[in-house]
Amino acid sequence: MNATIRKKCQKINIVLTDVDCVLTDGGMYYTENGDIMKKFHTRDGMGVSLLRKKKISTIIITKEKTKFVKQWAKKMNVEKLYDGIQKKEDLVINICSKYNVTLQELAYIGDDVNDLELLKKVGLSATPADGIDDAKKVCHYICKSKGGEGAFRELADLILETRK
Amino acid sequence: MNATIRKKCQKINIVLTDVDCVLTDGGMYYTENGDIMKKFHTRDGMGVSLLRKKKISTIIITKEKTKFVKQWAKKMNVEKLYDGIQKKEDLVINICSKYNVTLQELAYIGDDVNDLELLKKVGLSATPADGIDDAKKVCHYICKSKGGEGAFRELADLILETRK
Amino acid sequence: MNATIRKKCQKINIVLTDVDCVLTDGGMYYTENGDIMKKFHTRDGMGVSLLRKKKISTIIITKEKTKFVKQWAKKMNVEKLYDGIQKKEDLVINICSKYNVTLQELAYIGDDVNDLELLKKVGLSATPADGIDDAKKVCHYICKSKGGEGAFRELADLILETRK
Amino acid sequence: MNATIRKKCQKINIVLTDVDCVLTDGGMYYTENGDIMKKFHTRDGMGVSLLRKKKISTIIITKEKTKFVKQWAKKMNVEKLYDGIQKKEDLVINICSKYNVTLQELAYIGDDVNDLELLKKVGLSATPADGIDDAKKVCHYICKSKGGEGAFRELADLILETRK
Repeated sequence: MNATIRKKCQKINIVLTDVDCVLTDGGMYYTENGDIMKKFHTRDGMGVSLLRKKKISTIIITKEKTKFVKQWAKKMNVEKLYDGIQKKEDLVINICSKYNVTLQELAYIGDDVNDLELLKKVGLSATPADGIDDAKKVCHYICKSKGGEGAFRELADLILETRK
Repeated sequence: MNATIRKKCQKINIVLTDVDCVLTDGGMYYTENGDIMKKFHTRDGMGVSLLRKKKISTIIITKEKTKFVKQWAKKMNVEKLYDGIQKKEDLVINICSKYNVTLQELAYIGDDVNDLELLKKVGLSATPADGIDDAKKVCHYICKSKGGEGAFRELADLILETRK
Repeated sequence: MNATIRKKCQKINIVLTDVDCVLTDGGMYYTENGDIMKKFHTRDGMGVSLLRKKKISTIIITKEKTKFVKQWAKKMNVEKLYDGIQKKEDLVINICSKYNVTLQELAYIGDDVNDLELLKKVGLSATPADGIDDAKKVCHYICKSKGGEGAFRELADLILETRK
Repeated sequence: MNATIRKKCQKINIVLTDVDCVLTDGGMYYTENGDIMKKFHTRDGMGVSLLRKKKISTIIITKEKTKFVKQWAKKMNVEKLYDGIQKKEDLVINICSKYNVTLQELAYIGDDVNDLELLKKVGLSATPADGIDDAKKVCHYICKSKGGEGAFRELADLILETRK
């Protein structure tokens, strides 16, 4: 880890994360009877636990509004779930105020056009290996892992590396 | 992007797309109680949205006739869904007439033998990275992404690149 | 295609295929309420159709006995499904007799230890790119595609290449 | 196989295995009605069978407590399932005593932080190709296969190679 990233990691108190293409591989499984299904990764869940042990909270911010994200968030003991969010960058002020943190204390991992503005604002920004090119351009850190294959965990491990 | 592709992209007003192996990875999930399931990609959905913002419509043309394509089409606000289509190349005349466009204004992305004739007809033809060899031979553009992993979005981004 | 493989392909009248790790990626999806699910590939289904147009039948031989294989076989119009088969190599005599073909007219694609004896007997043997090493050693043809990603279709195309 | 690994393999009488990211790809599929689903691999199941033929038992040790692991364990005729286990390394003494084996006769395959202590204790330790770096550092053998793509089977084959 280079010194710039390390400094940024050391300041983080809350990790914000997108859902689709970050916690999942972007897949939306449609069944004939109308159900939708998404695939999360067990190691990202472990990442939430490991962060919590070091008093770092995880908060989900997503455009979609679905039951299974609620379920995953609950099972993983995520601090807070913001769903149905159209402008993620506008929400961040509320988060700073509610949790009494500065933008420098926030990390965010996102992958697509609607994540760009928020990625530009936070202290540490990351995108999965398969994030869009524009996300890669604005992010401090590009994960080796793809979305749904442990990208969130990789960011968590990066931050935790500075808390040993 | 080379100049030939750019010129073709600039003319496109409607993007036609196949479903299996383009919007999906070709997988058909069979359950014991008889359900079938398919996996779409969230970033392709975003591609439909981004195209629409630039007044470019998306139309689905597929051989199969299933409920979940109807669902995805509805959720993604797709202009029109043609399902159960045996000869895709014959349908294209109706589309040109109904939407008052020329063949040069149509893009099509398909992957298999039953897509070849339509691919040869349109102004801009594309196939996913894992399309069959014969599709790759006739297409103007071969996506870097595989079917179900954002191939449609890649085509959408290519076209949008010329509308900035 | 080299001349030896071409000769073998020209003789084939029936293609025998395994299911798990050939028509599927080997995945068995378990749900909490006891359902199991498997993932087939749409292009393999097209392979069955393309073979049938050239009067080449497809027959499934599998150790497992499940409803969804029955479903897939029916939907794909497969000639015959043999499920719950312990010794695949013993069944082949019945097939030769019932369909009045010689072993040289049979192709078989399989991937694991219980496929080895049958692979050694048929006129044209193939295994997916991720078949076990012992399968690769005994097979005439090793697919570039993995199981569930079009390996069966690749074998079908190979045979069809000699029927143009 | 080098001589050190061969020696370790020759002593193994029981293979212990983790579930998530070893028998599965780490994916947890969430449906809207609250179901969860996991994906196992058919060749790992064959691995359990092949080991059993050589009188080597397979035992599952997992942190989670879910119905489908019970199902898979039953279908695969696994010797014993320990689920809901927080400290895997503490359980191993009971296993040695119950099955009358030494630690040198145990193999274990795991992938994450909660597997490290057990991996350090057993006679033969292994991790899938996508295990975390810390697991790779402590393991005797790093599989070429990823979790859910036959990593368990690869370990089984390694051990069986020494029993021919």
